[in-house]
Amino acid sequence: MKNFILQNENAIYYECNFSCDNVIFLNLENDKYFITDARYTIEAKEYAKDCEVIETNDLIKTTKEILTKNKIKKINFDPNDFKYSTFKNLTNDIKTQFIESPNFSKLKRSIKSDKEIELLKKAAKLGRKGFKEFAKYIRKNGFNQSEEFLFFKCFEKMTQTGKLDVSFEPIVAVNQNAAKPHALPTSKKLKLNDLLLVDAGVKYKRYCSDRTCTSVANFEKFNFKREQNFKNKKHQKIYDIVYKAQLNAIEKARVGMKASEIDNLTRSIIDKAGYGKYFVHSTGHGVGLDIHEFPFINSKSDVIIENNMVFTIEPGIYLPNEFGVRIEDTIVMQNGKAVIL
Amino acid sequence: MKNFILQNENAIYYECNFSCDNVIFLNLENDKYFITDARYTIEAKEYAKDCEVIETNDLIKTTKEILTKNKIKKINFDPNDFKYSTFKNLTNDIKTQFIESPNFSKLKRSIKSDKEIELLKKAAKLGRKGFKEFAKYIRKNGFNQSEEFLFFKCFEKMTQTGKLDVSFEPIVAVNQNAAKPHALPTSKKLKLNDLLLVDAGVKYKRYCSDRTCTSVANFEKFNFKREQNFKNKKHQKIYDIVYKAQLNAIEKARVGMKASEIDNLTRSIIDKAGYGKYFVHSTGHGVGLDIHEFPFINSKSDVIIENNMVFTIEPGIYLPNEFGVRIEDTIVMQNGKAVIL
Repeated sequence: MKNFILQNENAIYYECNFSCDNVIFLNLENDKYFITDARYTIEAKEYAKDCEVIETNDLIKTTKEILTKNKIKKINFDPNDFKYSTFKNLTNDIKTQFIESPNFSKLKRSIKSDKEIELLKKAAKLGRKGFKEFAKYIRKNGFNQSEEFLFFKCFEKMTQTGKLDVSFEPIVAVNQNAAKPHALPTSKKLKLNDLLLVDAGVKYKRYCSDRTCTSVANFEKFNFKREQNFKNKKHQKIYDIVYKAQLNAIEKARVGMKASEIDNLTRSIIDKAGYGKYFVHSTGHGVGLDIHEFPFINSKSDVIIENNMVFTIEPGIYLPNEFGVRIEDTIVMQNGKAVIL
Repeated sequence: MKNFILQNENAIYYECNFSCDNVIFLNLENDKYFITDARYTIEAKEYAKDCEVIETNDLIKTTKEILTKNKIKKINFDPNDFKYSTFKNLTNDIKTQFIESPNFSKLKRSIKSDKEIELLKKAAKLGRKGFKEFAKYIRKNGFNQSEEFLFFKCFEKMTQTGKLDVSFEPIVAVNQNAAKPHALPTSKKLKLNDLLLVDAGVKYKRYCSDRTCTSVANFEKFNFKREQNFKNKKHQKIYDIVYKAQLNAIEKARVGMKASEIDNLTRSIIDKAGYGKYFVHSTGHGVGLDIHEFPFINSKSDVIIENNMVFTIEPGIYLPNEFGVRIEDTIVMQNGKAVIL
């Protein structure tokens, strides 16, 4: 694709190693343009690679002038990347034809470069460190703390007290609240032998980590390891099924499979155990600059899995008003197989 | 406006007192529809007022079916509220005509109800409490802490350790970093007599607070009060100009003025003092469910100010590579005048 236009912050970062929240990026046959306002031009000139930085207070007008001046006949855009109003203003009264190319940036970003994998590994490592520090806190002081407070402590530990960005708002959910895949923290307090679900990640140089652990709140022994000994037998039973499903997918995922086959590696185990209808979401999603990227690992996706794809494997079972279990790791496909980041 | 369609979360909350991140709201002459997926229908049925909750896994298809079944000829939409792809799918192969009504929800939300003002007052009160707690922390332990760490502590105090949401990411900036209107925190440490700028707010029942204080880091005496005694004479000089500009606008703002006249109440003072070119943004913005709402208080706006409008007054002077000062309060127009929330 020779000519394309972008507005999405991460898509633009991918192209030129810099981005900001008010920019239009033009990739033309011979030139690239980073069109932004006065707040960002100094940094853009320093960091944006191989492109001309244009300062303007009317991004759309300037973009159209560049397209016209360069006599661009056709340009590709992602219909999901532009508001209707922006699209209309861009395409109004201009000879350039705008060609719909849905998700073209996300598609090319689904296979990571070795450099990107290094950054994602580093993000995963920092994420694991956050989990470790959070576990340490819970061992010492977690008893009888509210979900809200633990959410805050999770944020503190994941960000290394403000040094890192989180890749999304952490989920910290106890028992019944863990049965909601996207629970908000409440004033509910953590008690001995409760089930605690934590889903959290951080960013390293804009690349995201993503991990979910479900643990038993046994305080002085508390940890986020995969082996958990729940006091409650039903907790243990469901945990073991989800764990088996996750391991099955990590062990058997292969390059060349369809995404739906990988989805089936978790789903079939949960189905067989009789809990299929309580696994209410897909098996995983790509991770990169965005926390949700291609490939999506669901039952309908025919996408062929390739080396250097990075995605989560996160089966779950959610028993309404009882509890929920989710186990999630982010993996990279290397030498044909899945490796946990 | 009889028939309209919404996708924006806050705009929908305004109409029916409930919202979620995957919903289309239809307001037809006789009926209102809250169209969402299975994750949200239980809560929607409990909380969404006076509307029919429709569960679907294809929001757009279901919306079109309802429009067709009700023989809706015309429906208003905000071109800023829909992605191009969503708009195209909605309007493709349907008889209903979609009428562009830019910002119609934001326009009607610019004048607050008495109930909304109560909620905004409560949010402002909680915000002030956060600032107070943060000041207490700085008095005791702020010396030699990094901006990153102070950012985190600000987040802790504003959210009451996880109980509240922030209305935006706090800005915590020392000296040179305060010269950037939207600075990111760094590892730079706070020292005696530094200038510290803090811009932060919280949400109460989805309504936002917004306030900025600029203070001298005199530790045991540290506070976020308006009267500040900077050790550095230039700090004090600039602070006094900004403070005078802010007070002038708060004292002289009147119902019936144009927004541009209120902008001029701050700008003229800063201009006269010779720093006009360092006041690089507008005087303020509306605050409500969104942190940035109508009316925008800038030099070009002809909007007539009315009672029950709520907006910020936040002049600033930013001296690149030196320091910046901004003083911001959120006010409500009542009985013709501005009252700090």
